[in-house]
Amino acid sequence: MPSVTESITEKLEQVAAGRETRGQRTRIALQEAALRLLGHDKSFSSLSLREVTREAGIVPTAFYRHYQTMEELGQDLVADSFLALRRMIRSVRSEGLPVDNIIGRTVEVLVSQVHANRLHFQFIARERYGGYSSLRLSIQQEIRAFGADLATDLARFPMLDRWDAESLEMLTTLMVNAMVSIAEQILDAPLNDAKVEKDIIRRAERQLLFISLAVPAWRPAKLAK
Amino acid sequence: MPSVTESITEKLEQVAAGRETRGQRTRIALQEAALRLLGHDKSFSSLSLREVTREAGIVPTAFYRHYQTMEELGQDLVADSFLALRRMIRSVRSEGLPVDNIIGRTVEVLVSQVHANRLHFQFIARERYGGYSSLRLSIQQEIRAFGADLATDLARFPMLDRWDAESLEMLTTLMVNAMVSIAEQILDAPLNDAKVEKDIIRRAERQLLFISLAVPAWRPAKLAK
Repeated sequence: MPSVTESITEKLEQVAAGRETRGQRTRIALQEAALRLLGHDKSFSSLSLREVTREAGIVPTAFYRHYQTMEELGQDLVADSFLALRRMIRSVRSEGLPVDNIIGRTVEVLVSQVHANRLHFQFIARERYGGYSSLRLSIQQEIRAFGADLATDLARFPMLDRWDAESLEMLTTLMVNAMVSIAEQILDAPLNDAKVEKDIIRRAERQLLFISLAVPAWRPAKLAK
Repeated sequence: MPSVTESITEKLEQVAAGRETRGQRTRIALQEAALRLLGHDKSFSSLSLREVTREAGIVPTAFYRHYQTMEELGQDLVADSFLALRRMIRSVRSEGLPVDNIIGRTVEVLVSQVHANRLHFQFIARERYGGYSSLRLSIQQEIRAFGADLATDLARFPMLDRWDAESLEMLTTLMVNAMVSIAEQILDAPLNDAKVEKDIIRRAERQLLFISLAVPAWRPAKLAK
């Protein structure tokens, strides 16, 4: 995922280091305004440019100095949302994969990420099958890239190290789908209801455990065409 | 799922029998107008009442004789969409579950349903995490009800007949999620591209087969709390 994504990554790193330009600050103000508006039961494709600029406190015409269309703003939001996820994975990796309770630890990190980046996750959940086909496509590509990273990690595990690429892809797709579903359930659960959240986590762990039980029974070489 | 859903079921059966009233015809015209508009890269929450009535060829004020809000129209569309799915299941059940190639047959029926009711499935895919929380909730309830039906069927299979309810629910959730994902991939694939569709179907079958391989390894009684 080069181009857009990477340029955003750089920009956000500049922002974090306090080196952002005024143009970058306005872009971020527009992104944050859009995310706040999405919190009120709206989908991105139903947001108007006028609403977003009003919320960001800038004049509508100034929008065009930064984006040609609302879709372009949406693309920045996609890149930004997955940036947080990639950072999380990078930090988990640098610590090394946990040897025990890998499922429990994965779900825990995911849930804490959803809470820390709630508006971004909500944006992704809505737009994954939302109104703009260009955003749907970008989100699918990002999810696929996330799956490919996971496949690389899984390929180091015993048994899985002898699997063909297609079988590994199938396993990661199942796991990524389960994780997407967990994220979506956490987003839809009432805030601060520890009991509901604990129940979602328990079900999620059981699902991932169940999927892992099929690993020894799968015959990748024989079944792969 | 009684009330709304069932009343729609009855209405649609009356329509099929040519006994619908003028009011029912207008409601159906409004529903169809909304679905057509959603075909053009729009989400339901971004549709205005004015657009829908214009597309349906009625005056905006006439809308209120049938629905108080756009959300109410959306609720009818949810009920209508799942009605098609329930009919499909009822017909599969009346033939008895296929003994061999159950996975292949299930995927085949699902894909043919997506093609036959493309706009309805697209509506559900978009609104599952779309702008209206009331529609999100109804869709989740319908998907859960679909899962419960599937659990009843699975409970008749060898091994599964001794599973506790929670384990069965977990298995059906995994299968329903896989089926939702297949439906969404078929919707997003280019129309009339047999190769892409064949590939989606093959991956889907492998996923469902993989899930089924975990069944003998699962220890429901021991793991269920």
